[in-house]
Amino acid sequence: MNAFKLKLLLFVFVLLSLQIQAQQKDSIVIKKIFHEIFTNGQSYAHLKYLCKNIGARISGSEPAQKAINWGLQKLTETQADSVWLQPVMVPHWKRGEKEEAYLIYQNKKINLAICALGNSVATPVNGIKAGIIEVKTFEELRAKPNELVRGKIVYFSRPFPDTVLYGGVAYGMTVNQRSMGPIEAAKKGAIGVIVRSMTHAHDHFPHTGATQYKDSFPSIPACAISTADATVLSNAIEKDPQVTVYFKQLCEMLPEVLSYNVVAEIKGSEKPNEIIVLGAHIDSWDIGEGAHDDGTGVVQCIETINTFKKLGMRPKRTIRVVLFINEENGLKGGLKYAELAEKNKEKHIAAIETDAGGFMPRHIGFALPKEKLHAYKSWENLLAPYGVQAIDENGGGADIGPLKKQGALIIGFHPDGQKYFDYHHTENDVFEHVNKRELQFGSVVLTGLMYLLSEHGVE
Amino acid sequence: MNAFKLKLLLFVFVLLSLQIQAQQKDSIVIKKIFHEIFTNGQSYAHLKYLCKNIGARISGSEPAQKAINWGLQKLTETQADSVWLQPVMVPHWKRGEKEEAYLIYQNKKINLAICALGNSVATPVNGIKAGIIEVKTFEELRAKPNELVRGKIVYFSRPFPDTVLYGGVAYGMTVNQRSMGPIEAAKKGAIGVIVRSMTHAHDHFPHTGATQYKDSFPSIPACAISTADATVLSNAIEKDPQVTVYFKQLCEMLPEVLSYNVVAEIKGSEKPNEIIVLGAHIDSWDIGEGAHDDGTGVVQCIETINTFKKLGMRPKRTIRVVLFINEENGLKGGLKYAELAEKNKEKHIAAIETDAGGFMPRHIGFALPKEKLHAYKSWENLLAPYGVQAIDENGGGADIGPLKKQGALIIGFHPDGQKYFDYHHTENDVFEHVNKRELQFGSVVLTGLMYLLSEHGVE
Repeated sequence: MNAFKLKLLLFVFVLLSLQIQAQQKDSIVIKKIFHEIFTNGQSYAHLKYLCKNIGARISGSEPAQKAINWGLQKLTETQADSVWLQPVMVPHWKRGEKEEAYLIYQNKKINLAICALGNSVATPVNGIKAGIIEVKTFEELRAKPNELVRGKIVYFSRPFPDTVLYGGVAYGMTVNQRSMGPIEAAKKGAIGVIVRSMTHAHDHFPHTGATQYKDSFPSIPACAISTADATVLSNAIEKDPQVTVYFKQLCEMLPEVLSYNVVAEIKGSEKPNEIIVLGAHIDSWDIGEGAHDDGTGVVQCIETINTFKKLGMRPKRTIRVVLFINEENGLKGGLKYAELAEKNKEKHIAAIETDAGGFMPRHIGFALPKEKLHAYKSWENLLAPYGVQAIDENGGGADIGPLKKQGALIIGFHPDGQKYFDYHHTENDVFEHVNKRELQFGSVVLTGLMYLLSEHGVE
Repeated sequence: MNAFKLKLLLFVFVLLSLQIQAQQKDSIVIKKIFHEIFTNGQSYAHLKYLCKNIGARISGSEPAQKAINWGLQKLTETQADSVWLQPVMVPHWKRGEKEEAYLIYQNKKINLAICALGNSVATPVNGIKAGIIEVKTFEELRAKPNELVRGKIVYFSRPFPDTVLYGGVAYGMTVNQRSMGPIEAAKKGAIGVIVRSMTHAHDHFPHTGATQYKDSFPSIPACAISTADATVLSNAIEKDPQVTVYFKQLCEMLPEVLSYNVVAEIKGSEKPNEIIVLGAHIDSWDIGEGAHDDGTGVVQCIETINTFKKLGMRPKRTIRVVLFINEENGLKGGLKYAELAEKNKEKHIAAIETDAGGFMPRHIGFALPKEKLHAYKSWENLLAPYGVQAIDENGGGADIGPLKKQGALIIGFHPDGQKYFDYHHTENDVFEHVNKRELQFGSVVLTGLMYLLSEHGVE
């Protein structure tokens, strides 16, 4: 071996040693985070308060404002460097009295469990009653003669596919029925829409969620039906295509309301201008308690700041958590945050979203081409003890999405998702379905990730 | 490059190609297994029947015999090549009427939720009432003067440690209180034992589980106390070390009963003498429904044989599933199976146990030194889509353990374990806590693993 080769070898050796030392240091820090959260963590107690003392908190409502006040207080108590509110106007949709629905089949009245879709218009006060057209896809609906659909209720019945691996993917394959169904049905002259709930569960909970209209077509009332009753309805239609369905919902869109994002930050010691955001949404739907969606994300955000402070960790880059308002039915909070970031010329290098439930961590998605992931793959080993199976390229998030065009690396936190859509947007999304330790493991991974990003930056 | 090097390179290339082709084939087979189980699988319906129509099924009881009959029938319906029973004598322990307990604190009677430990002796019919000695470890107990303990009830209160990653490890760090506590307490002259339940959950369910005695010391009655009431009891003792506790349990050990393991197999096409076993236990404790422990394992075993038959898969080596009797309080089924295997000169090359709940798959443990794992590491990629995070060296299993000395590779199936001990051995281990898809993912991984082992054998 000549001297040059020897030097090169030594250089590589030193580089590798430094990398191993850095990994060892990171590993020790994350272990400390784990111990702190599992010994003194507040997330479970916070979640209990948010669910049981505040409860459902749709944008513009009184409980939403209570949740904002509470979030502000809890973040202030962490002794973060700064905590502030970002004013933003949000829609205020109100469900009104409990919906009613039934079908008439062979002269028998069979009650159906429904709930209005978020942002839907009401039916007339006496409800609507009409024949029903069942379709699984928009193509199927478009192929029907207009006169067949006119004056009817369109029933979108495409189920969650059993043979896809992830709930989020199944959701993506079916949710357009809910979000766009009323537009497609109105185009054909329908007077109402019923959508099969977006879930693998077979039970009696209807799942709400945002729908939308287009000015060029009439806004027609739209509701979700529980999967158990979707089966009842489909069976009835199969036996007698002439069945009629009645439903009544008295929801309304009220004037916009002044609301707020809640923001807290710890200034970076070396690169304070590089900002890393962790976000969740503080609003929820108006039924249930918004436990997994997204109370768990909110308390994990608070836990992250709290853990940095409790352990005396000063990040090299600025870390920030944002409790976004209005993720569910308008995204006004996420859009406002990005607008202000741009206006204030802030440099967001990365943004993580936790809005997929308080289950055991599984995957972390970096919105990067696969070949650029390698820079972060070594973090898998650091986070594996706390449940992370893999870092992959499936990054994303509704509230943080608008930061992408400002150059932020968009990161999605994906806990195990098999049960998320069992509870999502229902009365059944309650505190009791959250496991304390699973929630805490999520906090460890998110805090660990915020630490790694603040320590090492992005490529 | 000379001709030799070229040939060598080509040889390596061909080898690698063959390996990749084999992996692709395996991947396709496991995908087919996934589709079959998620489309036509019976495991969830089977579990419902086992839990709701048969229910708790402690060894020697009538429901245990019903479960055996049912398991035999279901395995016969799969059209396995052979299905048979292995007779074995099992203990028959009976709880008797509901236990009672209270503590007297400042002249107030506070009821405590307890249940007798499995195999425990009864108290006198009027119960026992005595002062209480709280300890966290056997060392602490041994250090006490005998006269302080004599005539008292020993209360073992070591909690599940929060800061260990896995429930199974926490269990291992605390369960000796339950299994050996009565021996240690009797040595010091105590007249009864209360053990804090083995769980991270803080609730009102006491957790039973097997305890044992030694002939050289008196057999004293032992019960478990719920974690919520363990806190009550510890707080009372802290404030007033003179508190007295009463408990009554009228359990008894009845004469042994003839019972059975249920076995089904599909003969191997190429190496029929090499046997691979997948096992679960058909008995459960006598409270709850034995859903996660181990109804889910039982129905996964049946699903495995069923899936091989439905897909027309003929394994190269013989695959067998065993529904063991008496895992909970004697292990007589596991011991009998190994005894017969030895007697019949069967060659078991591998044995897998599924007895850790119907949760999402996480780890598969091969009882091998770490450096010998590499032969199986390529299977991680094949099983990752269905939840397997890693194949590691933590293999084991109570029922399959006795096969180790016959040379079988012992493999443990470890689904996500954060919630398992919330339900384990309680009235709360019921069907409703099992998620259909998580159960099915377990079936996919186990069937996939049986396929890989039957196809490729062991090193």
